[in-house]
Amino acid sequence: MRIRKKKWALPFLADHPNLVVAAPEKYRGRWQERFAQPAPLNIEIGSGKGAFIVEMARRHPEQNFIGIDMEDAVLAMAVRRALTAGVSNVQFILTNGKAISEYFAKGEVQQLYLNFSDPWPKKRHEKRRLTAPQFLKIYQEVLPAKAKLSFKTDNRPLFEYSLVSLNNFGLHFERIDLDLYQADPEILAANVATEYEDKFKEKGPIYRIEARFPDKVVD
Amino acid sequence: MRIRKKKWALPFLADHPNLVVAAPEKYRGRWQERFAQPAPLNIEIGSGKGAFIVEMARRHPEQNFIGIDMEDAVLAMAVRRALTAGVSNVQFILTNGKAISEYFAKGEVQQLYLNFSDPWPKKRHEKRRLTAPQFLKIYQEVLPAKAKLSFKTDNRPLFEYSLVSLNNFGLHFERIDLDLYQADPEILAANVATEYEDKFKEKGPIYRIEARFPDKVVD
Repeated sequence: MRIRKKKWALPFLADHPNLVVAAPEKYRGRWQERFAQPAPLNIEIGSGKGAFIVEMARRHPEQNFIGIDMEDAVLAMAVRRALTAGVSNVQFILTNGKAISEYFAKGEVQQLYLNFSDPWPKKRHEKRRLTAPQFLKIYQEVLPAKAKLSFKTDNRPLFEYSLVSLNNFGLHFERIDLDLYQADPEILAANVATEYEDKFKEKGPIYRIEARFPDKVVD
Repeated sequence: MRIRKKKWALPFLADHPNLVVAAPEKYRGRWQERFAQPAPLNIEIGSGKGAFIVEMARRHPEQNFIGIDMEDAVLAMAVRRALTAGVSNVQFILTNGKAISEYFAKGEVQQLYLNFSDPWPKKRHEKRRLTAPQFLKIYQEVLPAKAKLSFKTDNRPLFEYSLVSLNNFGLHFERIDLDLYQADPEILAANVATEYEDKFKEKGPIYRIEARFPDKVVD
């Protein structure tokens, strides 16, 4: 869902410098300074209204989280949600996935989440999909070897594409769910739903893959 | 579906030595002798009543096919189907998947098909699944490097398992369909349905993967 630029969003983000990182390039290699305590760092690219990243932060106080989104209005909603939840282990950046290698040092990010990314269905827009090889290369630059990638979507063609793309890039698959809400209770209990997921989980299967990056690029 | 041993099946198979190979170990390394003309050899493990392998043989007279099944009664039905279709480029073997490395020489088989294999849902039966690593190792012994494996099923847990297993074994994914009957018309036109598939395609998605074996085993 596209949300039109809202006039209040940018000033709101600027008003919350403790949660929103205005100059992320300054923290490259020292992101732990932004948090109350040093801890493994998880990022979500395309964090939307923040239901996932804020709930993850709440459930896992022993880890740190950063939500990244390029839409100021949805990022502002995520910040508002973090304020309401009162979590101290989450930060936000207003940017897109391409920029992350400028903002994070190699190995600085522990784990990467992609949830319900834009499917970009047209073949000529393939490069914009967040699971395209061009993006996987960028992620690899900031992740340590064997870092975990978790990706969920309800978009079948995007998931079909992503399984092939991740496999061809050399990722090691750990677990695949082709209908997440039919999975075992302990899997579901650990799942944190996004707003979109909560709305669409009744309409068809939610697909998920958990995979690890290779030691090095496989061509 | 299990079919109980039928008394007529074994004599019927013995009565058709031109189609049914009684001593397959004798043809190891020289399977082309069994066919009217030398051609790339495709095998289906678990060919059931033969709708797939016989129709593939009919559509692709420029290739050779072997259907393998361990149930004499269904293999006999497949043989009867081949007789009716009048195809000369298909052969049958009554055996199970484990034996194929005794029956085929390295590189002798061009392509392998697995269709609606037994899901063996219990964890302790995992090794019996035809996409388990133990079987992939056997297939690799008779296939050339980069040989194609095509696998279809309507069983979600089996497909989830198989995607992980094939990835972990180092297969290179070429195409995945998570709802084959929603695929583009040219994909569907090339698809040959099994009996089971024709019956169950209305009840839920048919999953398919097309992948290639690696140059060598990845551990």
